[in-house]
Amino acid sequence: MLRKRTQVGIVGAGPAGLMLSQLLYRAGIDNVIVEARSRAYCEARIRAGLLEQGSIDLINEVGGGERMMREGMIHDGIELRFDGHSHRIDIKGLTGRNVMIYGQHEVVKDFIALRLSQGADIMFEAEGVRLEGIDTAKPVIHFEHGGSPVELECAIIAGCDGFHGISRPSLPSEKVTLYDHPYPMGWVGALVEAPPVHHELIYSATSHGFALFTMRSPTVSRLYLQCRPDEVIEDWSDERIWSELDQRLAGGTRYELPKGAMLQKGITEMRSFVCEPMQHGNLFLAGDSAHIVPPTGAKGMNLALADVRRLALAAEDYLKHGRREGLDTYSQRCLKRVWRAQHFSWWMTCLMHTFDSHNAFDKRAQQSERDYVVSSEAAARTLAENYAGMPWSWDES
Amino acid sequence: MLRKRTQVGIVGAGPAGLMLSQLLYRAGIDNVIVEARSRAYCEARIRAGLLEQGSIDLINEVGGGERMMREGMIHDGIELRFDGHSHRIDIKGLTGRNVMIYGQHEVVKDFIALRLSQGADIMFEAEGVRLEGIDTAKPVIHFEHGGSPVELECAIIAGCDGFHGISRPSLPSEKVTLYDHPYPMGWVGALVEAPPVHHELIYSATSHGFALFTMRSPTVSRLYLQCRPDEVIEDWSDERIWSELDQRLAGGTRYELPKGAMLQKGITEMRSFVCEPMQHGNLFLAGDSAHIVPPTGAKGMNLALADVRRLALAAEDYLKHGRREGLDTYSQRCLKRVWRAQHFSWWMTCLMHTFDSHNAFDKRAQQSERDYVVSSEAAARTLAENYAGMPWSWDES
Repeated sequence: MLRKRTQVGIVGAGPAGLMLSQLLYRAGIDNVIVEARSRAYCEARIRAGLLEQGSIDLINEVGGGERMMREGMIHDGIELRFDGHSHRIDIKGLTGRNVMIYGQHEVVKDFIALRLSQGADIMFEAEGVRLEGIDTAKPVIHFEHGGSPVELECAIIAGCDGFHGISRPSLPSEKVTLYDHPYPMGWVGALVEAPPVHHELIYSATSHGFALFTMRSPTVSRLYLQCRPDEVIEDWSDERIWSELDQRLAGGTRYELPKGAMLQKGITEMRSFVCEPMQHGNLFLAGDSAHIVPPTGAKGMNLALADVRRLALAAEDYLKHGRREGLDTYSQRCLKRVWRAQHFSWWMTCLMHTFDSHNAFDKRAQQSERDYVVSSEAAARTLAENYAGMPWSWDES
Repeated sequence: MLRKRTQVGIVGAGPAGLMLSQLLYRAGIDNVIVEARSRAYCEARIRAGLLEQGSIDLINEVGGGERMMREGMIHDGIELRFDGHSHRIDIKGLTGRNVMIYGQHEVVKDFIALRLSQGADIMFEAEGVRLEGIDTAKPVIHFEHGGSPVELECAIIAGCDGFHGISRPSLPSEKVTLYDHPYPMGWVGALVEAPPVHHELIYSATSHGFALFTMRSPTVSRLYLQCRPDEVIEDWSDERIWSELDQRLAGGTRYELPKGAMLQKGITEMRSFVCEPMQHGNLFLAGDSAHIVPPTGAKGMNLALADVRRLALAAEDYLKHGRREGLDTYSQRCLKRVWRAQHFSWWMTCLMHTFDSHNAFDKRAQQSERDYVVSSEAAARTLAENYAGMPWSWDES
């Protein structure tokens, strides 16, 4: 039995856990990351890939942006395509802010390397992780590491272990409310060895369903197709994916889709979920462990970074100065941004997809909203400001 | 049997029919209005009461605005109240346009007087009105007037006789698509002899449901309360109405509601409805005969005026110059504004009401949208520009 102590025990080495660890390190606060998976697994896990301006700034501020600034692709706008007609939303022009394409696994790679170079304690492949005493001043993370049991005593624990992690179920169920909204569709995602067909993302709505063209790098494209929620990837041959993409991405500004090798494909679930509050005692949830959004609005990683930015400030105030107010109001203050992202992601999902449940009236109303978004400067700006992400100052009042 | 001829036969002496008659008169086009009700009935029928800037301008342009400009109340903004917290939407500041409170029956009174003073032929109390030959170059309006049958032969017929009128059912049913969307609520409306409690409208959303404070004149207030869709006015005693109003209008900027005599009360149905196309042969629908909106967005009378403005121009082009393009594209060009109003009215209805069907997620998402509308300038401007009405130029491109 190994007994260890730290100020902040962090469960999970995703973007939330790693950024929190780095923020705390820079504030001189001792922390340990406990991660169930291997380093290689974490670094290869393909997830979200879009960073808001605030996220880019935060990554740079803490010294983790060197490769990101070299390899990330700054985007000033997106293209909305409705039944083949292209419309550009000028994100930069409408908001003064950019977004950046840079894969979540790249952020994870960069931050694991950075943290380790600074001597961080990241315990990969921790088995049987469980939390104890979260109601007390000395909560403990229990796990096995290299075959030996470990007890990690903390002042506070950050649950950054995602939607399927053990942190959220560690909250007393009678103390939390779970908000769950499944959507009647999924996304087929394909990673393709082919240069981007266009320099910006294309969100394309057609009567055959939605498709999204995006990218991971100058040589790798990422393509998504709306599918039924119960479909399995075995139903989607490469040929079927190409054929549907050709149909759904056709239109006004036509691009020839380069059909490179399919490196990876899978189905993404579409779901909105929020756990309220995001904390109990000395356990604080951050990122996907507390909330997930459908990928349409590209908010996932950004919300995670916004959570831990706030949590790090609150933890510092508590651990250095004994002031608990920031921790006590952590959930309440995070949730304003979380619900904004939930509403925006729901809205964007409704705007862009085909819904089997839509009657004739619903379809016409959706069409009118699409026309409006691309013809009203005010409407385009609501999309742009949510897409680029509300500035930090927005939820700090 | 009386046989008459006119260039444009207008069915209905509401705002649409009267404005069309006036526009055609000014263009030197002969027209006759056929109205099933008496003049007194038309002048007393309480309906919508909010005019967009474009509607105000149009009424003035055709010489019908003298009393309106004297008695109408110009509003620069509206108040949104969420659970007792007041937020002002600065319509004028956000759009450069105003709205005006002036009852639809006042518009009707002014235009009946105006048209009659110009020698117009308005046949009130026409019985058994029916249309014949709308597919031909000489469609006929049949009716009885003062006990005698009349055949009114026209070049074109304008169906301005409202949702329950005979014009829409005169379109061949296989040629039209009806879009119908009922809402799971109604509005209890009360007309009260009491000065307005506030100089602008108050849209108030609470957990007890929605309430709207508006006015008809400096001495008459108009109050609305969300109710179940199946309720009858007998369920709503004066006491119950006052008690619910006190509860739902309470809040931040608190006003003492002056409890004057209740002059009139009733239940308003909440429904969205569109008939597409709005025309067949030489019959053209305008206003409520073609589309109705829930009252939340205050679009009803304004859409009717926008329709007949376009119809008058098209009719003039056809009857004076033989060019049919304006008539042929009438429906298609009206429908852009109609669907914008439908979508906006749906959106505003969803934003402000309590829905029994809402689960916990839906409620939180609605709350986030409410917060957003009053904290984002772009979001407030989408509300303001729709509320003030898109300028004529918006759908003329």
